[in-house]
Parts: sequence; structure tokens; C-alpha cells
Amino acid sequence: MSRGLAAIKKVVEYVTNSKGFEQCLKNVTVVSAGDGKCRVEFPVEDGHLNGGGTLHGGFTATLVDCISTYALMTTGTGAPGVSVNINVSYLNAASPGEVIVVDAKTCKAGKRLAFLEVELSKKDGGRLVARGQHTKFIM
Amino acid sequence: MSRGLAAIKKVVEYVTNSKGFEQCLKNVTVVSAGDGKCRVEFPVEDGHLNGGGTLHGGFTATLVDCISTYALMTTGTGAPGVSVNINVSYLNAASPGEVIVVDAKTCKAGKRLAFLEVELSKKDGGRLVARGQHTKFIM
Amino acid sequence: MSRGLAAIKKVVEYVTNSKGFEQCLKNVTVVSAGDGKCRVEFPVEDGHLNGGGTLHGGFTATLVDCISTYALMTTGTGAPGVSVNINVSYLNAASPGEVIVVDAKTCKAGKRLAFLEVELSKKDGGRLVARGQHTKFIM
Amino acid sequence: MSRGLAAIKKVVEYVTNSKGFEQCLKNVTVVSAGDGKCRVEFPVEDGHLNGGGTLHGGFTATLVDCISTYALMTTGTGAPGVSVNINVSYLNAASPGEVIVVDAKTCKAGKRLAFLEVELSKKDGGRLVARGQHTKFIM
Repeated sequence: MSRGLAAIKKVVEYVTNSKGFEQCLKNVTVVSAGDGKCRVEFPVEDGHLNGGGTLHGGFTATLVDCISTYALMTTGTGAPGVSVNINVSYLNAASPGEVIVVDAKTCKAGKRLAFLEVELSKKDGGRLVARGQHTKFIM
Repeated sequence: MSRGLAAIKKVVEYVTNSKGFEQCLKNVTVVSAGDGKCRVEFPVEDGHLNGGGTLHGGFTATLVDCISTYALMTTGTGAPGVSVNINVSYLNAASPGEVIVVDAKTCKAGKRLAFLEVELSKKDGGRLVARGQHTKFIM
Repeated sequence: MSRGLAAIKKVVEYVTNSKGFEQCLKNVTVVSAGDGKCRVEFPVEDGHLNGGGTLHGGFTATLVDCISTYALMTTGTGAPGVSVNINVSYLNAASPGEVIVVDAKTCKAGKRLAFLEVELSKKDGGRLVARGQHTKFIM
Repeated sequence: MSRGLAAIKKVVEYVTNSKGFEQCLKNVTVVSAGDGKCRVEFPVEDGHLNGGGTLHGGFTATLVDCISTYALMTTGTGAPGVSVNINVSYLNAASPGEVIVVDAKTCKAGKRLAFLEVELSKKDGGRLVARGQHTKFIM
């Protein structure tokens, strides 16, 4: 069953209230979801920072992983798949208080493999923060 | 100033007690550090899991980022640099209770760029969990 | 000196007539170039194939490398930089006779690092063949 | 049927005499092959160079693709699979006349996915030239 905005909002509500790692997405708001795409946004807060006081590369990679998975869940059977490979390029730092928009899209959802792409940019001005590619295996 | 085991232990103690994202490393034990390498280990716990009940790909990517940075800090000036690119391949799932060993090494620490590599494997049996490459810019 | 279409056409003419590796681009036509972007196209021919009779992943990676470099040369000083990292995802096979469009764009051209992105798709129907990310160091 | 040194030598002889893209490997010598590994070496020649007169990143990526595929062919059924993702980091330049050793190994050959790794280094002194990760889908 493919899923739309209401369903993805429920997924995010569920995982952020679980004991699992996706708790770290608790201040992320789902803006839109459907047709293989998902957009979320969040304000950079203390819990997202590295030692230099900017958005942590591990949190960015986690967003690339998760938001692209939500995008994939709006296609076909709604299955999340398992990660095969993630690649992230870090273009610009982001600071506390800035709002980041995360746009994920499904480039291909095949029978066995899905290819997903993610872009993080600043809501104010649109400057790119990171770009990611995520490949998943569909079981 | 390059750093050894005692210094890296202090770094990890500091970041896991901060309000930043590296809090998520709080059950990670530094086993060794020096000469451009760093080894840590941790038991897979609830806080590391994805919705399927196995080690979350975002936490794995965070380890690739952080542990390789600690490895880099044992070289040259001890500067952590900023991430340019991270690539992670996911080979096998890991389950709660399994102990994971993370081995990071510095392949090259140049004047401007550092190339780092990370391997996650199961302490019991050595099965590979993930492999990562991390490129950093030294300012 | 940043460069436009005429200049990039000359670069491609020069390298395909050299004794270097970019000879392999000899049937590539530059369609447009400027403002940090470059588009080329080519028909898949025998010299581009793998043992399975489809577009070779090494040739695809070479296109990701080269066409994004041409895109970068249309910005700033026109300097090509040196490669730091290339990542390529392979979405669909391409067969002899199909025409492939390669679209490269500069996501960021900083003082020291440039972040480039490339998409290969089929001219007939637009199906994606591959997507790539290329990071370069500007000396 | 898994393959050993003699079989991989025949594969390389065949592809370098074909009309396909792997012709570009014609001066590559297979040193060893078996147990999921393959080692080749070659002298850097004019046909491998970029415009700056050093080893071309596209040729390096082609080696990552091909030599890891030969490594995979020494396992299990000997099937080469199809590429899903390639990631290459470029550590140091290589110049004409230098001999490069390419070491590929199979990190995991599963039923559906294979994870391969490649290292290019200088025969004289061992300096790293590039490191790559290659993921293949087994059909």
C-alpha cells in the first residue's frame, strides 16, 4: 500500500516516540509526501550540532537515510527496504536557528532496488547544505 | 598537537556529555587510539535501532563520521577538519546485544584534505556490518 | 576566465584528438555549456560496451568525471581542479543505438572545493541511466 | 563456476581484444586471482592521462569497476553481476612511467548483492593513489 501525507506523518510520529534511533527526528515536520517524494523541515537546534557548533554530519546522513525512505514508502507497496549504500556531500554549514528543508525523491523504484536522492537547503535563501544518494534493496 | 588514547577518551567523554548530536555515542568505549587510527566498540541497544529492530543506518553513518574524525585527530595538528563527503556500504544487519567493533584509519592526512576509512564488524565472529569512506577538509 | 559553449567545444575537440584517456569521448557532442552547466549527448556505440553488451560502468563514470569538469570550467576562473571523490549510481542499462543525454551542473564552486552533479538519461523517453556526484579540489 | 588466475587472464585477454570499452585495459597484467581477490598492475602510459598529465580519474574508476568484478568472478558461480554503485576517492596523483598495483577484494558475495573494495597504490613505495567501493547486483 503506497502512502500519502497523513500516513507518513503517522510514521514519523511513531518513530520519534519509539525508543529507536529515529527519536532524533523529533523536531522534524513533514511538509508533503506522495508520488515518491517527501519534504520535511526543521530548525537547527542544540541536539543536532557537532563540536564546532554547526549541523552534525551524522545527523545530516541520518536525514538522508530516513527522509528518502519515507519518500520510497509513498510508492508501490510502501515497503521501506534496507539500505545498501549512502553517499553524502557536505556543501555548506548550517547554524542554530536556521530552518533546513529536506527534499527527498525516488529516482527509481524497481522490483529489487530503489534509487533515492536527497537535498538539504536553507529555507531562508535556499543555499544548499548537503546532497545525498541512497540505494535500498527491496525484499 | 596529535592525540593518543587518553586524549581521545576525553574527547568522547566530553561530546557524550554535551547537548550536541554526539550524545548518541554515549555507550561507545574507546579501545585504542593513535598513529592515525581509532578503535571503539559498543553493544547494540534499543537507542540504535531502526523500525526493523536492527542497527540504524543513520547511526552507522554517524559512527563512520565520528570515529574516523577521532582517528584523524591522532595525527598532525589534531585538527578535526570538516566533512566533505561520506560514503557508507551496508553489508549485514546487526541485532540488539551484539557487540560491534568500529575500526577507523587515516589513509592520507594531507595539508588540505584527509582521507579516512572505517570498518564495522561483529566482535563475535568478525562478520562485516558496514564499510565507509570519509573525506575531510582541513582548515 | 569562465568559458561558454564555443570554449567547451574546443576543449572537447582538443582532448578527443590528444593521446590521453579522454579520446574515449570522441563521439560526444556538446549541446550547451555555461553558467556552471554542461550538456552533451552521444549514441551508445561498440566502444562503450561491457561484456553484457550494454553501456560500461567505467565509461559512465568517465562521463561523470569529465562532463562535470566541463560544467565547472564555465564558472569562475575556468580552472578544472582535481578530483577528490566520485560517486555513481547505476539505475538502468543502455543499449547500442540509444542516444544518451548527460547533464552536469555545478552545485557549489567555492574557493577550495567544488561540488558537481551529473545525470545520464535516454534522449528518447527520458529514462534515467545513472546519477553521479563529483567533488573537486581547486588549486 | 568460480575462476582462478588462468581463467581471469583469459577474461582480460578476451575483453582487451574486443571492440568494447575494456580495450582500455590492454596494458594491464593480472598478477593473481582467486578466493574473491584479484591483483593487477600496469605502467601509467599516455593513453591513461588527463589534461594535467597524470592518471585520469575516469580510468581509475574503470579499474575500480573492472578489477573488482574480476575479483567477484573468482567466487561462487563466477557471475560478474551488474553495477549498482561505485565510489572512488582520489588520494594522490600518478605520473607516466610509474607502475600502479590494483588490489581488489570481495568483502561480501551474497545471494543478491556483492560488496567489493579496491585499492590503487604505487608499486615503488606503496603510496596510495585511490580507494574505491563497488556494489553489484547478482542476477
